[in-house]
Amino acid sequence: MRRAREVDVRAWVASAREGSPRAVARLITLVENSHPALPEVMAVLAPHTGHAWLIGLTGSPGVGKSTTTTMLVRAFRDEGLRVGVLAVDPSSPFSGGALLGDRVRMSDHALDTGVYVRSMASRGHLGGLAAATPQALRVLDGAGCDVVIVETVGVGQSEVEVTGLADTTVVLLAPGMGDGVQAAKAGILEVGDVLVVNKADRTGADSTARELRQMISLGDRTQPGMWRPPVLKTMADRGEGREELVAALRKHRDHTRASGEWQRRRVSRAEREVEAIALARLRERMRGLPDGSSLHEVAERVAAGDLDPYAAARQVLDG
Amino acid sequence: MRRAREVDVRAWVASAREGSPRAVARLITLVENSHPALPEVMAVLAPHTGHAWLIGLTGSPGVGKSTTTTMLVRAFRDEGLRVGVLAVDPSSPFSGGALLGDRVRMSDHALDTGVYVRSMASRGHLGGLAAATPQALRVLDGAGCDVVIVETVGVGQSEVEVTGLADTTVVLLAPGMGDGVQAAKAGILEVGDVLVVNKADRTGADSTARELRQMISLGDRTQPGMWRPPVLKTMADRGEGREELVAALRKHRDHTRASGEWQRRRVSRAEREVEAIALARLRERMRGLPDGSSLHEVAERVAAGDLDPYAAARQVLDG
Repeated sequence: MRRAREVDVRAWVASAREGSPRAVARLITLVENSHPALPEVMAVLAPHTGHAWLIGLTGSPGVGKSTTTTMLVRAFRDEGLRVGVLAVDPSSPFSGGALLGDRVRMSDHALDTGVYVRSMASRGHLGGLAAATPQALRVLDGAGCDVVIVETVGVGQSEVEVTGLADTTVVLLAPGMGDGVQAAKAGILEVGDVLVVNKADRTGADSTARELRQMISLGDRTQPGMWRPPVLKTMADRGEGREELVAALRKHRDHTRASGEWQRRRVSRAEREVEAIALARLRERMRGLPDGSSLHEVAERVAAGDLDPYAAARQVLDG
Repeated sequence: MRRAREVDVRAWVASAREGSPRAVARLITLVENSHPALPEVMAVLAPHTGHAWLIGLTGSPGVGKSTTTTMLVRAFRDEGLRVGVLAVDPSSPFSGGALLGDRVRMSDHALDTGVYVRSMASRGHLGGLAAATPQALRVLDGAGCDVVIVETVGVGQSEVEVTGLADTTVVLLAPGMGDGVQAAKAGILEVGDVLVVNKADRTGADSTARELRQMISLGDRTQPGMWRPPVLKTMADRGEGREELVAALRKHRDHTRASGEWQRRRVSRAEREVEAIALARLRERMRGLPDGSSLHEVAERVAAGDLDPYAAARQVLDG
């Protein structure tokens, strides 16, 4: 295993907790690069985690995710809360470290140290975004953010998974971009805790909202005691609907905390995180087995019929 | 771990090697069900494996995979070879044990004990078809088949992977169902060792074949010494093109054996197989950790901040 003497993990975590965006940036870069110091980073962060409220925000390109994120950031900053934003987009043109693009986009908050904004794109990380995202969120959580907004493109199963594991998930739609039936087909109704029809001044906004409400009333979330996703209308670029959205988010948080769903999701998120790390570790181990042999050599013996694949797998697993 | 006293592995393997279709069927069912006796089955089979020539056959629905398979089976049976057929189709309506459907389809060979035909569909197997297929092929190989044809639907990445790992891969196309450019886009030219335009009496067959040849001549497989995929035309339902196809397959086999590519693919196939089993084992282990705790309990500690996810993963991996 490589050593990483140059990384002073405790100092970086301390700086991050004091609000240094530079320290947070460095720690997330370690995550993106699967740096050997990561286990130490996570061990030092662990006692500080669990505080942040993780809000997932998803929707197709063009529905207004960035403006909605900006609106929410402003609302939480007005209350004096520290906010982290993680934009997860496999097709993002920004490299992992490119804060500039985000700063331009989120220009309102560029000089506000109470906000940290970061883009993440899949760049050959072991296990990809599915593995890296929870750990980047863990950095923002451990760094002392009160709220972390994770923005994902609602396409592809891995993104849905990430979204489904937030404390509270907002699904954004725009009129004419997908009616209720299409949303249901895409599995959007299942992951959304709060549904938002943005660009509410456009034709069809009312009927889209009505359809969504109908779909929900026909769904399986109508049992007593279950959270029933509200459908809101916003015009995020003008800040309209901001208070209603924040109120709906808080209502969901309070409801799930009381019902135990909050804790259940958090444990489930931790399960997936541990599983992803364990699988990545196993893949690493297979590339260089502890006893000096490699998967390739074991496979040669399997191909020759000298070893069966189960015995080979045992060797790979147990060294 | 469950014990499986009722399975007399050595007797079943011996019967399978004597040509009992019933014994082969039972062994493949063990594979499909991830039966606890599988490691023993594979250990007993291992010394008998490595003999079969594994031919992959892929193409979109409707290009004539079944008729081509039937044509090839007939050709190899005429030479007195034992042939196994594995139809891998995640959307297959046949259940894993349903030989009847195959027998109807392959009715020429229904009473021929030199042919064994089996459908496999993904049915909740750990790791799905990607894990089960190589092991089912291992059963057919170990049972003494000289040739095993694995028929896959050429849609979705997992199928391409399976196909790319055969000793020799045939890609089937039909005129008007996809021209050369579309085939190139779909990654078909990369996996095909022999390209076949079936239904060659249809309009456009010649131009499809010409386009494919052009695409190949522009590709990166034109270096000296590399296998250059031939493009053949067949009418499988009438048996036309049968000799040419078999000759092309043999030529590919001889070429790759001489170049070392044959051995390289087999080791690569074994690598993936071992990897898939190891990952499935790890998932099993995570559901019930050896020390009596479970992933869920570890995750609860992670969610509470008492344990970091890397330490938790280490615990999961090393028990």
